[in-house]
Amino acid sequence: MNRIINDPDYVVEDAIQGYLKAHPGIYQATDNPRVLKRPQAPIAGKVGVVTGGGSGHEPAFLGYMGKNMLDAVAIGEVFSSPTAGAFLDAFKAADGGAGVACLYGNYAGDNMNVKMAIKKATAAGITVKTVVANDDVASAPVSEIERRRGVAGEILMWKVGAAAAAQGYDLDGVITVAQKAIDRCRSIGAGLSSCTIPAVGKPNFHIEPGTMEIGIGHHGEPGIEVIPTQSAKEMAATMLNFVLAEQAASPPPEVVVLVSGLGATPVMELYIYYAEVEKLLTEKGIRVHRALVGNYFTSLEMMGVTLTVMTLDDELKKLVDLPTQAPGLMQGE
Amino acid sequence: MNRIINDPDYVVEDAIQGYLKAHPGIYQATDNPRVLKRPQAPIAGKVGVVTGGGSGHEPAFLGYMGKNMLDAVAIGEVFSSPTAGAFLDAFKAADGGAGVACLYGNYAGDNMNVKMAIKKATAAGITVKTVVANDDVASAPVSEIERRRGVAGEILMWKVGAAAAAQGYDLDGVITVAQKAIDRCRSIGAGLSSCTIPAVGKPNFHIEPGTMEIGIGHHGEPGIEVIPTQSAKEMAATMLNFVLAEQAASPPPEVVVLVSGLGATPVMELYIYYAEVEKLLTEKGIRVHRALVGNYFTSLEMMGVTLTVMTLDDELKKLVDLPTQAPGLMQGE
Repeated sequence: MNRIINDPDYVVEDAIQGYLKAHPGIYQATDNPRVLKRPQAPIAGKVGVVTGGGSGHEPAFLGYMGKNMLDAVAIGEVFSSPTAGAFLDAFKAADGGAGVACLYGNYAGDNMNVKMAIKKATAAGITVKTVVANDDVASAPVSEIERRRGVAGEILMWKVGAAAAAQGYDLDGVITVAQKAIDRCRSIGAGLSSCTIPAVGKPNFHIEPGTMEIGIGHHGEPGIEVIPTQSAKEMAATMLNFVLAEQAASPPPEVVVLVSGLGATPVMELYIYYAEVEKLLTEKGIRVHRALVGNYFTSLEMMGVTLTVMTLDDELKKLVDLPTQAPGLMQGE
Repeated sequence: MNRIINDPDYVVEDAIQGYLKAHPGIYQATDNPRVLKRPQAPIAGKVGVVTGGGSGHEPAFLGYMGKNMLDAVAIGEVFSSPTAGAFLDAFKAADGGAGVACLYGNYAGDNMNVKMAIKKATAAGITVKTVVANDDVASAPVSEIERRRGVAGEILMWKVGAAAAAQGYDLDGVITVAQKAIDRCRSIGAGLSSCTIPAVGKPNFHIEPGTMEIGIGHHGEPGIEVIPTQSAKEMAATMLNFVLAEQAASPPPEVVVLVSGLGATPVMELYIYYAEVEKLLTEKGIRVHRALVGNYFTSLEMMGVTLTVMTLDDELKKLVDLPTQAPGLMQGE
């Protein structure tokens, strides 16, 4: 397939160079080539906010560093967890003496590596607490919610947790509110094409033209069902049903809606899809406080879309509204 | 092909609804369904800044409305000029008594419709002056520069012109500085796949897998040459050579670099490509003052990239740096 890369084995290194060069005010290299930090980090007395994850999801994860956002990020191979060493070095880069909140997604590799990194960080005198995102409703039934994967809702968890840290919350406070943020997020994806890890060279899953997979994961993990491709209106209804099924509807909440393309979805189509989501929410009396529509959490060149809805309370609203300057999420007053 | 749309004949209407609903603080509908304006427009005493163009290039053109950006936009069918009536209504929506700067791209349909709209605007007592973007070096030799198309450099022309208007420049001042901005922009695209207008249903051009077309236009207009797909490093060199050939290199200028995906290019690959561009510029002693890397000016689901370089002077630097809040270009202090 046609790609814009150099050596397929070095796409992560090359992309990191791009981020460093494109946004010198946002990123600083560290001694670990798989850890970037803000030039300002660590900030004395502020809780450090860290995440980490596999590459190929740009702007996630590293794109969410910046003012009022993440302090340091551990970067993995394409679709693979960062190493324990990278998580540890990210903790060290972010710790300003008030501890570190590690806000990451629920995948086996990440869970294992974060756990090992925390053991070493504790030995080095750094307090690290975690929130593990599990917003993907398609990845396990609600009775086994702890098995669910973290997907685009992570962005809202980072936004809220990092805003709280910037506002002076202590470590327990940051953890509590980041946990609340992800607890109030539900997400689901729909894939309309597969994608190919550059170093592998062929897709590890397949979506038949004319069909789409509801509930597909960010790495092509199998979804709930494969169905003929629906109209944007039908897709919005199908996906919103899953997402709202577990969210308190009485009284109708205010929500943040995040619609992300998976990499190869035209921006035009993301907005067509969002219009249908908004119509359905309005019919249910649910008010959209803020909408994010764009390529926020991608899967290489997958064609498709994810839908995330987060219900708000006053605290979350205030934190969601705090301006941010991160390449993945620029937000003014 | 797999798309996220409703009726292919109504993708423009549906996408406009998405923009209106996603960004209610940015957009206001007008009596003309193909014209959106800022809620604040017209602003008394400020030069109104307007553009217009075909759909399918989102976030161009309507995504560049907002604070310190465009006041009103005329919206065409997919890959087609807005009507003269839409341009006229956009002028009316933007005119606060200080005249309107219409900053648009050099295409036959747009030229004709803007001309007709200006005739009617003049009759209605609105002064409109224009700058016609022609930054695409691939579309004609420099000896016939007036034949060249406008491409992603338009974004920098809008940024500069709108910033000048926001800073209180009069109409002639806005036109002069927007003209300077586009005169200092050179762009080129490379296409790695074709795209399909939804209402047509099949691509009107073809790119063989394993090849790419250097100089391709935003609507699939033929480029300079079709060559085997290069590495990101080679592509950057090939494209930068075209772009820098006409730009003063002594003394080495400071520049803005805009790398835009064409719709289906993974974000990761845009950053890999940018890293190579920056390396080559640094080797030539050229300093990047600001880099924009993302899906800024797309062509539906085309895979590929455009490169724009604008050389700066002190005035342009100040205007480029002014914070903006537009869905397509959020820029902080």
